[in-house]
Amino acid sequence: MASKIPYKIYLHEEEMPKYWYNLRADMKNKPAPLLNPATHQPVTFDELKAVFCDELVRQELNDTDREIPIPQEILDFYKMYRPSPLVRAYCLEKKLNTPAKIYYKFEGNNTSGSHKLNSAVAQAYYAKEQGLKGVTTETGAGQWGTALSMACAYLGLDCRVYMVKCSYEQKPFRREVMRTYGAQVTPSPSDTTEVGRRILAEFPDSNGSLGCAISEAVEAAVTHEGYRYVLGSVLSQVLLHQSVIGLETKTAMDKYGIVPDIVIGCAGGGSNLGGLIAPFMGEKLQGKNDIRFIAAEPASCPSLTRGVFAYDYCDTGKVCPLAKMYTLGSGFMPAANHAGGLRYHGMSSVLSQLYHDGYMEARTVEQTEVFKAAEMFARVEGILPAPESSHAIKAAVDEALACKESGEAKTILFGLTGTGYFDMKAYESFNDGKMTDFIPTDADLKKGFDGIPRFPGNEF
Amino acid sequence: MASKIPYKIYLHEEEMPKYWYNLRADMKNKPAPLLNPATHQPVTFDELKAVFCDELVRQELNDTDREIPIPQEILDFYKMYRPSPLVRAYCLEKKLNTPAKIYYKFEGNNTSGSHKLNSAVAQAYYAKEQGLKGVTTETGAGQWGTALSMACAYLGLDCRVYMVKCSYEQKPFRREVMRTYGAQVTPSPSDTTEVGRRILAEFPDSNGSLGCAISEAVEAAVTHEGYRYVLGSVLSQVLLHQSVIGLETKTAMDKYGIVPDIVIGCAGGGSNLGGLIAPFMGEKLQGKNDIRFIAAEPASCPSLTRGVFAYDYCDTGKVCPLAKMYTLGSGFMPAANHAGGLRYHGMSSVLSQLYHDGYMEARTVEQTEVFKAAEMFARVEGILPAPESSHAIKAAVDEALACKESGEAKTILFGLTGTGYFDMKAYESFNDGKMTDFIPTDADLKKGFDGIPRFPGNEF
Repeated sequence: MASKIPYKIYLHEEEMPKYWYNLRADMKNKPAPLLNPATHQPVTFDELKAVFCDELVRQELNDTDREIPIPQEILDFYKMYRPSPLVRAYCLEKKLNTPAKIYYKFEGNNTSGSHKLNSAVAQAYYAKEQGLKGVTTETGAGQWGTALSMACAYLGLDCRVYMVKCSYEQKPFRREVMRTYGAQVTPSPSDTTEVGRRILAEFPDSNGSLGCAISEAVEAAVTHEGYRYVLGSVLSQVLLHQSVIGLETKTAMDKYGIVPDIVIGCAGGGSNLGGLIAPFMGEKLQGKNDIRFIAAEPASCPSLTRGVFAYDYCDTGKVCPLAKMYTLGSGFMPAANHAGGLRYHGMSSVLSQLYHDGYMEARTVEQTEVFKAAEMFARVEGILPAPESSHAIKAAVDEALACKESGEAKTILFGLTGTGYFDMKAYESFNDGKMTDFIPTDADLKKGFDGIPRFPGNEF
Repeated sequence: MASKIPYKIYLHEEEMPKYWYNLRADMKNKPAPLLNPATHQPVTFDELKAVFCDELVRQELNDTDREIPIPQEILDFYKMYRPSPLVRAYCLEKKLNTPAKIYYKFEGNNTSGSHKLNSAVAQAYYAKEQGLKGVTTETGAGQWGTALSMACAYLGLDCRVYMVKCSYEQKPFRREVMRTYGAQVTPSPSDTTEVGRRILAEFPDSNGSLGCAISEAVEAAVTHEGYRYVLGSVLSQVLLHQSVIGLETKTAMDKYGIVPDIVIGCAGGGSNLGGLIAPFMGEKLQGKNDIRFIAAEPASCPSLTRGVFAYDYCDTGKVCPLAKMYTLGSGFMPAANHAGGLRYHGMSSVLSQLYHDGYMEARTVEQTEVFKAAEMFARVEGILPAPESSHAIKAAVDEALACKESGEAKTILFGLTGTGYFDMKAYESFNDGKMTDFIPTDADLKKGFDGIPRFPGNEF
């Protein structure tokens, strides 16, 4: 144990995790199984393998094996941009004049700009191992699409991305990054799929939606020989891959004798939060620690804090299986929050179960306050954070200020998932004083809840 | 010495350099002194201190002290984003199927996106130490302006950036990054200065130029109490600060027993190249190695390869001192190359002298070939490089392919100065097959040479 903690802790290559940690193996109350939306019976391997790669279906259904070895080719890819630094936020502590010790795990030092790459390379790898030609996916803000493009370029796999049309037009630079990595990027809705043509016929001026893009990407996968569909969040397999974040963090903290009191992450679909907390939560489930885990979600899309715990569609197109989760209803339309990655109606079923069982807290933060925290953070810590990540910053700052009040020197860890270089429109709106907040009314929420399927056993 | 070189070498905090290395101290033929453009006499401390901070003038004029201690506050700031990784390009080597061992020092893992921050924080620090209120500068592509904004935000110093008007309009995101860091960004030419008003009166539709922006920034500094002007390249003080790149690289290489045969950097004003090669060149000057140093410059702005070695104006506005350097003439207008950071008519007088004395080679590379190399690099190494940095990639790839021909396993080191996240317009042009090359004719060059001042002792 070093006498003084450095600004940044980088693990050595040989200290990097060799396996992913499957938190579900240590959960007494397992997340409920995915259901076939037609039969309401648990989906089978055979049903899922038409859409997803075989090995990924196995990982999705595996809630018993604690450690899943990371294949060598993925380990090699990880070495190109990992380990990511665990940063001691000395400057932020000084700025806040808090006795708290603040750490953040920074996942933004790669071209995709976020943690998404951790799962993208895993999913692309298994597609290649299966001998497939390529993968399809959707992307909204573009971080997931960029990550998948990078992984596919490295592995020599075809990559087709359906990008929500308004993002395609408003974020041309994201689109160009994907093209530079060789991906075929199609604005959605498009005339390349049945579902796209149907939507265009009905709404010729449609700007698209994530739900529509998912439906197009799934259709493109199942109608093209040698393709499968991949998804960047929500699924348990994605949380599994993202456990590399938490494993690295824990190794680095153990090395320096650091024990967190509070662990914070922003929560959209739950992949970064689930990955960051995994090994710490695993110990908590075994009674080995009493860490507080906090999910920070946007006030405009409060799935954990104001949603219901029920089986619901994962996508607005209702083509995917039903998942038991905290949800606002697949028809809930969140306001145009700049944190596109957090505008999801549901939440990982793993995190939903943990929240339901009282192992995790959740809170909402408002957009303008989030950007205030983001700007302050950027000025003292140097890194310009993504709007999504800034939700965790805001919650961490609030906890650090609470420590200042109480005089407690707590150790706070948060996940800084990515950078905001492609989100400058959001910062411009903030810099110009034009940013607004939106909190849905109970009536807004009720409309969403009304779209959740009702069937025996799905009372809420 | 480790048996296998890791993908990335990060120094420990305590291994980071504590001083900058002043290469001029080891040069037998010192760079010629800056001259007062009116008298053609060497500029004095008193003449320079009206424009630049006192301590920076001392550093500019100091060609004898080998080691300049880095103040603690700058060391602390460096710890926020340094050490930068020295990367072994295993994937690029495999792609090229070359026996060469390729390394690059990556300076892009900070929000400014480049090495510019190394000097920005130093210059801002000395301004603050002198009790000044703020600094002024110009920026073209925006990397320097961003870096200075970040440093000033950290130190609590006012920052006024004159941004070339066409960049201000074409790169709104760069502008917003600067604003997020609290800088005042003014499109140049502007009505805030005499020189700006004069240009606007004559050319109301002017898109601006770097020369004009420099003139405005200098005027703003000398006409506002408590302000000084700072510059991001060309000056010897900037190369001094950038020596941190080379010092870290050499420490990392020494640690693993790596000895480079070839060191390559892109060359605009010369700051990254001068910084990267400094400690290696210092040893070469003392006869301790026989490394080949290669400056890669754009074919569209070939100051070393096709310029003349003469005293010339550093800026098109002709308000700065004269420097002895390889120059195309301050009136030379380079074609609209996407590598804005390399569109400079001159070259650091330190590098110019070394090139003149045969210690360094130079070569030109063409834009389209540069982007081909950049795209290939991005796909195999993951990092999306800046157009400027990609000039070094192209030269390194050519050297690695030469090794493949000859069967030699040379060790090649190059500087990867930054990322291209704000340069996607350039990539778009490349992706769409619309990129062109431009090589100036001898007649184009003659026009530039005609603007170089003629006076006794300045024959060329």
